[in-house]
Amino acid sequence: MPEHTRKHTVAVVGSGNWGSTISKIVAENTKEHPELFESKVRMWVFEEEIEVPESSRHHKRLGGQKRKLTEVINEVHENVKYLPDIALPDNVVADPDLKSAVKNATLLIFNLPHQFIGKTLDGVVGYHLPYARGISCIKGVDVSDGTVTLHSELIMERLGIYCGALSGANIAPEVAAEKFCETTIGYDTPPMDADERNGSPKDNLIKIDEQRQHKTKPTHVKLHPVPKDLPAVDAELWETLFARPYFHVNHVRDVAGVALGGALKNIVALASGFVAGKGWGENAKAAIMRVGILEMIKFGRTWFPKSVDERTFTEESAGLADVISSCSGGRNFRSACHAVEQGVSVNEIEQKELNGQKLQGTSTAYAVHDFLSKHDQLQEFPLFVAVHDILEGKSTVDDLPTLLDGKKKKKRRAPEGA
Amino acid sequence: MPEHTRKHTVAVVGSGNWGSTISKIVAENTKEHPELFESKVRMWVFEEEIEVPESSRHHKRLGGQKRKLTEVINEVHENVKYLPDIALPDNVVADPDLKSAVKNATLLIFNLPHQFIGKTLDGVVGYHLPYARGISCIKGVDVSDGTVTLHSELIMERLGIYCGALSGANIAPEVAAEKFCETTIGYDTPPMDADERNGSPKDNLIKIDEQRQHKTKPTHVKLHPVPKDLPAVDAELWETLFARPYFHVNHVRDVAGVALGGALKNIVALASGFVAGKGWGENAKAAIMRVGILEMIKFGRTWFPKSVDERTFTEESAGLADVISSCSGGRNFRSACHAVEQGVSVNEIEQKELNGQKLQGTSTAYAVHDFLSKHDQLQEFPLFVAVHDILEGKSTVDDLPTLLDGKKKKKRRAPEGA
Repeated sequence: MPEHTRKHTVAVVGSGNWGSTISKIVAENTKEHPELFESKVRMWVFEEEIEVPESSRHHKRLGGQKRKLTEVINEVHENVKYLPDIALPDNVVADPDLKSAVKNATLLIFNLPHQFIGKTLDGVVGYHLPYARGISCIKGVDVSDGTVTLHSELIMERLGIYCGALSGANIAPEVAAEKFCETTIGYDTPPMDADERNGSPKDNLIKIDEQRQHKTKPTHVKLHPVPKDLPAVDAELWETLFARPYFHVNHVRDVAGVALGGALKNIVALASGFVAGKGWGENAKAAIMRVGILEMIKFGRTWFPKSVDERTFTEESAGLADVISSCSGGRNFRSACHAVEQGVSVNEIEQKELNGQKLQGTSTAYAVHDFLSKHDQLQEFPLFVAVHDILEGKSTVDDLPTLLDGKKKKKRRAPEGA
Repeated sequence: MPEHTRKHTVAVVGSGNWGSTISKIVAENTKEHPELFESKVRMWVFEEEIEVPESSRHHKRLGGQKRKLTEVINEVHENVKYLPDIALPDNVVADPDLKSAVKNATLLIFNLPHQFIGKTLDGVVGYHLPYARGISCIKGVDVSDGTVTLHSELIMERLGIYCGALSGANIAPEVAAEKFCETTIGYDTPPMDADERNGSPKDNLIKIDEQRQHKTKPTHVKLHPVPKDLPAVDAELWETLFARPYFHVNHVRDVAGVALGGALKNIVALASGFVAGKGWGENAKAAIMRVGILEMIKFGRTWFPKSVDERTFTEESAGLADVISSCSGGRNFRSACHAVEQGVSVNEIEQKELNGQKLQGTSTAYAVHDFLSKHDQLQEFPLFVAVHDILEGKSTVDDLPTLLDGKKKKKRRAPEGA
């Protein structure tokens, strides 16, 4: 039996619709498991002045006033701006001060738009517990200069703490409304934290380069073990913190696969939107998803051969399920579909319908194309390349069937033994 | 180089919307490959008297008359009853006489509703070439008395010819309209037909029991080799016969997986319809598909351990892509969705909207439940069982999240080496 005398303290860094939804979930669970967790969950909120909108159920009481978002959240237990009409448990405490939000947290959950992660980590460094453990719910990967960096890796390097990832077919408003879904947690418990907790000083180096074979300079992160007076931090603990009757959790050790799935699926969603815009029907969309998953597998196998488990893409919510839901709805799918229907470029749709904001699919498609080009691997990823070329106006959607026809190339599957 | 002096002759047994579509495809290819195939494709049509409907583009010429369906097809090159408005190549010849349709065929394609297969094979036996080779496009499997029989196996046993399977995300009207899609051919070339065609008399027995481990009585089928004056019948030949620019073909050796995929996906489609009817959104549908594919894998692994390749379910059109398209549309999905929306049973929908016709999903769900029950494996397939129990009124759709929560059971995935 565990011999801990302290409990874990949870902080959520980020409070958009997905950050607020995750705060709701974990706060429900810290209340239900007082033997493991302190009830109070601090949610860091980027402070802003808001006016409670007329459509809000709190408008009568709070309408017409300029108020701070954190004050409103703590007063009415609702993020009226980013997750309206969803009651947050009263043990979620909005905190505008990043340092105070993270300082006592033994479990850190990162859940904010990827463009803010670098700056936010600057504000955390030095104020967090050195033995904290993290989970990144941030979608996307950082691709630059021929290198793919996962956000969990970035967090490990910057904060010196071990960090996993959570991703899945999790459209936030549906999860917030407690409609049934699943998610995947990727967490590969560091040796020193493992079951018997018999970590020796030799075990406390994590080699991040093992997850980035293409990177020439290896990065080592020195970890501090989780103190023995705290409950062990392993897959079971994270499942207890995240699983709800409406939010099923599956655990895998493959952090890279979980993170890659959440990034690459956005390229596939654009392709699905293209064929939907053409009116090619369900067969064509299903074909795009199938080919997309195979290219995700190949991407993982090529650049993360030691860490990626192909089954993350074919069997987990962070893989095929997230591809399916993103290829049936969501902004990337819809924008690509509208572009084809209206005979304009996706860029024009971004200008017209998204106020110039770039879709995650388009920026990922460009970054991945650049990366593949640097590694001379364009010919191995015909769907990813086709999406880029259609965005660029170099190919048309009508070219897709020909671009995907791999029959002239070598067979994908090696012959089996007779 | 091949030394054949004869060409293959193709017959299609069946002429519904999918049979007519497949006839169109193969006739396009026999014309394009005169070095391998006789151009003419005989399509066996169950003869009926029809009146060309007013909506037909041939009504002006043929309306008002009672005509034989085969005569109309051969006159206007269109199956006006089952695949209206789609031009068939003029080398498709409708034949009302089953014996004459099959008698010269070296390649037999079976494409008819599964309830007619037994009787139809009665009419073929003794009139077909003993060295013919077959492909079954028939969806479904035969489950009875604790045994699963594939239609390809039934054809092998009854006709004494080797038979593979074709299945995929292939909603017939979309394929007929030449909208892009993919399919999977399962064909495990018998040793005597293999590349070097050096078959010895010892090689001409196919053990069907290898694909049915649960069957106690093994069945051996004695095959006649394909004569050497004909082009070799292997995966490449079938791909040449079926692949079109709009119809991409992938080949696997796993016939059982291809056939099982086309059958079991209908149970999953009902479950997807149930959660769609509840308005649970895309996350929930994606979760159902994911769990469904995992149960399909487990079904194949349990009862076809030597023949099924799990990747057929996770990577092929006959697996995940067919699940996706069936869970987004199609009769099973829609009927289950309507039932939940209207608060009635699926059976009532079958009575009301389908004139009492049973859905393939409901009959498969009952047959599989009966099969699992006989083998005491109900607890291993919570989704398949839940669909049966919801059809039976023993469970409700609201129970689904709980029924699928496997956390109390052993982990699915064995821990990986550290």
